Amino acid sequence: MSSDQVLVFGHVNPDTDAVTSSLVYASFLRKSSTPAKAQLLGVLNPETLHVLANGPAGAISPPEALDIDKLQPGTKVALVDHNESSQSLSVLYDKSLKLQITAVIDHHKIGDLHTSEPLYCRIEPVGCTGTILHSLFVENSIEISAIEAHLMMSAILSDTLNFTSPTTTPKDKKAVAALAKLCNCTDTDAWSLSMFKAKSDVSQISAVDLVKLDYKVFDMPDGTSWGIGGVETVDVPAILGRASELSHALDKVKSDSPKPIAGIFLVVVDILQVKSTAILPATPGTELDVISKAYSTTVTHKNGVPLADLGNNVSRKKQLVPMLLASLSL
Amino acid sequence: MSSDQVLVFGHVNPDTDAVTSSLVYASFLRKSSTPAKAQLLGVLNPETLHVLANGPAGAISPPEALDIDKLQPGTKVALVDHNESSQSLSVLYDKSLKLQITAVIDHHKIGDLHTSEPLYCRIEPVGCTGTILHSLFVENSIEISAIEAHLMMSAILSDTLNFTSPTTTPKDKKAVAALAKLCNCTDTDAWSLSMFKAKSDVSQISAVDLVKLDYKVFDMPDGTSWGIGGVETVDVPAILGRASELSHALDKVKSDSPKPIAGIFLVVVDILQVKSTAILPATPGTELDVISKAYSTTVTHKNGVPLADLGNNVSRKKQLVPMLLASLSL
Repeated sequence: MSSDQVLVFGHVNPDTDAVTSSLVYASFLRKSSTPAKAQLLGVLNPETLHVLANGPAGAISPPEALDIDKLQPGTKVALVDHNESSQSLSVLYDKSLKLQITAVIDHHKIGDLHTSEPLYCRIEPVGCTGTILHSLFVENSIEISAIEAHLMMSAILSDTLNFTSPTTTPKDKKAVAALAKLCNCTDTDAWSLSMFKAKSDVSQISAVDLVKLDYKVFDMPDGTSWGIGGVETVDVPAILGRASELSHALDKVKSDSPKPIAGIFLVVVDILQVKSTAILPATPGTELDVISKAYSTTVTHKNGVPLADLGNNVSRKKQLVPMLLASLSL
Repeated sequence: MSSDQVLVFGHVNPDTDAVTSSLVYASFLRKSSTPAKAQLLGVLNPETLHVLANGPAGAISPPEALDIDKLQPGTKVALVDHNESSQSLSVLYDKSLKLQITAVIDHHKIGDLHTSEPLYCRIEPVGCTGTILHSLFVENSIEISAIEAHLMMSAILSDTLNFTSPTTTPKDKKAVAALAKLCNCTDTDAWSLSMFKAKSDVSQISAVDLVKLDYKVFDMPDGTSWGIGGVETVDVPAILGRASELSHALDKVKSDSPKPIAGIFLVVVDILQVKSTAILPATPGTELDVISKAYSTTVTHKNGVPLADLGNNVSRKKQLVPMLLASLSL
């Protein structure tokens, strides 16, 4: 790996925004005369595979997996769709590697991000990293290819759940309208539904992998860390039908966690109804009290599995994590 | 203070960029239909007074001093020209106040910035916050008044030492060219020189206040903190003529520091020659070894005062702090 080249990657357990944003931002950098390469931390989910398989000019190659063993000291990296080290490359702040974070493009709260030199950091409270990337192309008068448009548009529709998530902003809608034209997508609702159906087809994924599919660890103000998985689906019964094995999988992911975590749960989001349910670990722990309090809800048991109705709180970023942070900082 | 209003402020010991950026960003927010007010943390320096006194339509009012005692819990704040808590409002992360950081506009490395919700964060590796603010107006098609143009232009010329600092980028020069037209400034070199002369007239300022005038504390990788003051001047002999009292003032600022600091020094920058000299504290301490090593220089004594030639290293942000960080992380 050339030390001049910027490696661009999204968070671990990548979703469509993380993957497409690494491809698009790397392309943006190259078009701006900065050598850059998209990299992948983890496995592509079924929705992202669907987005890559259905590009405007055929299948789009996914980012190459990042090979930690080949990283050279001082390598330049750009983080997209995340900024917290707990969701990033394990060696992000390794003292001997001394990676240089030269850019961050994100739409999340700021965690433990820090650098030793000035960088380009663009974080906006919008629904998707793709929306910010769209702005970057427009502001810098850089042409957007149909493939780039397809990737950014799909990410925005995915992250905003086709504009039903409370994270949606007018800027996201404007970006999709502009991008849909550029990739000749005439029905963004139909394309969204096809993505959500692809995302919902998780019958071949083991319970542990399903917990980890869109799983992030968050550091809390009381010094503890919490792991929160997410499954967005148009077929809630299919997921809740596996509640018992998922509940035991949460136990396993919790006990196997390299970083000790105080609590863990899996949020099952009903994309069409815009509401969500938490599955708690099978082994009773701190989750019962904390989740009841943070989300003003009651944990009930269905076929012995602890579940909590989270109502219309479907956004981990804008609702679930801030509510948990607030509750644990009291 | 209404809790809807965003309070916009620059770093403590404010320089021209910190002050003008708080005025301009507050104005930008108001023009974008967000209630906002510029606030001041500290005392205006002679250069900033000169910039405010010579606006295109007469004197410009400085920001009101921020009154910590009147801060209400949950107040929204926007940080300009800084992001580290050690350079900000003392209660920035106070647990009972729970201030909400809704925006950061800056051009420094990222320190301990963190939030509990997504925000607007725009950090770019350019010479001045004013340059980024100029982009914000252009990108959002918001008209720039002559006063705003004068403030941003002056900040950029100040921070880049009229484009001689190594922090200068093509974007800074383009912004000044555009802004000069908007405020009818026909000779930016002459305006820069008048600012630098105003900045250099520090005869009325006590040695301790001179150390504190542009003083920032930086947290180092070895867990220590260092305080670095800066005096940019066109009249180096006038400053070095006061080297002995400044050296004793460094002792006092160091021992009086609310946050324990391991080392302190004052960087005297010759704006016209683009080179700098460090004055070390009178009491021999860790500064001697650390400064010699970090800047590959030798500490010499002139009339008993320890001085170090820092060569062409004139930028604290881009040169002096990164070199110190690198040296202390070995």
